[in-house]
Amino acid sequence: MRKLTHEELLARRLTVAEASTVPRHAVTVVLQDIRSMYNVGSIFRTADAMRIERIILTGYTPTPPRPEIKKTALGADDTVPWSYEGDIFVALAAERARGSRIVALELTTTSLPISSLSTVSPATPSPITLVLGNEISGVSDDVLAVCDASVEIPMEGVKHSLNVAVAAGIALYEAIQCR
Amino acid sequence: MRKLTHEELLARRLTVAEASTVPRHAVTVVLQDIRSMYNVGSIFRTADAMRIERIILTGYTPTPPRPEIKKTALGADDTVPWSYEGDIFVALAAERARGSRIVALELTTTSLPISSLSTVSPATPSPITLVLGNEISGVSDDVLAVCDASVEIPMEGVKHSLNVAVAAGIALYEAIQCR
Repeated sequence: MRKLTHEELLARRLTVAEASTVPRHAVTVVLQDIRSMYNVGSIFRTADAMRIERIILTGYTPTPPRPEIKKTALGADDTVPWSYEGDIFVALAAERARGSRIVALELTTTSLPISSLSTVSPATPSPITLVLGNEISGVSDDVLAVCDASVEIPMEGVKHSLNVAVAAGIALYEAIQCR
Repeated sequence: MRKLTHEELLARRLTVAEASTVPRHAVTVVLQDIRSMYNVGSIFRTADAMRIERIILTGYTPTPPRPEIKKTALGADDTVPWSYEGDIFVALAAERARGSRIVALELTTTSLPISSLSTVSPATPSPITLVLGNEISGVSDDVLAVCDASVEIPMEGVKHSLNVAVAAGIALYEAIQCR
């Protein structure tokens, strides 16, 4: 085997023009009060690779354009559809109104394994809106109260959480499998 | 649903003492010339959560203890088994000698989807050694030449790579499923 050349990689990639018209996986991410611009940028980069529909930034989550976001987004902040809504409840109500299932990534009393995102009713998968919470406090209890379900990434170690951008990567990877 | 309390989370977690004796998934990560201490720390944090066997740091990859590694590892650099080997070829030869399959995470002419890590021969999965390359240049060609296989995370966007710590998260999540 050999590494793909730059030309071979380019041939696989979407152009910027294509990115705005291509069909996208029916997955939206809602960020609740993410603090770090580097995390926001990294989630943009992952959202581009996974070709999800949209990122909705809420609360005090920083928004593009910011050099610190660009540093880790590597330009994906220019091509991934995104919007800002100060009130996360307004954003979630709009998502529900368009038929999306609201799922929090959070360790709760009823959270399902993250793998359920790709295995639950694969025949007729509904669009999904995945809520990711603040780096320290996670998804808040009042937001959990309006979610349809919660999912968790199995935590088998001494710590009980992952970096939010890493967790987003795993969650989006699972979520796009059947959508 | 409600969030798990601190006490409920503690009850699920390994203690530091348990972490040194508990069985671990038969997955080792080899880091080739990772530049960023924050990426190294984040990979330690993920390796703790996924309870993998070991991280082998090679080349100019920075090693603990370093405050910048600790910042993103959140202490996982104290509990995840790790070692340093300057020459990655020595490290890979030792991994092969103990029966591990050497798999690069890289876009190559023959790379398989990352999902093959959890679906290939689940009845008798061999231990796996996953090689992650430098942030810019990836796994080098001379290292690829001694790998048994390569796997790739599907890239459907304008960019052709993920942050290495995010990619490590997805790869480890897949790799531990059947080991």
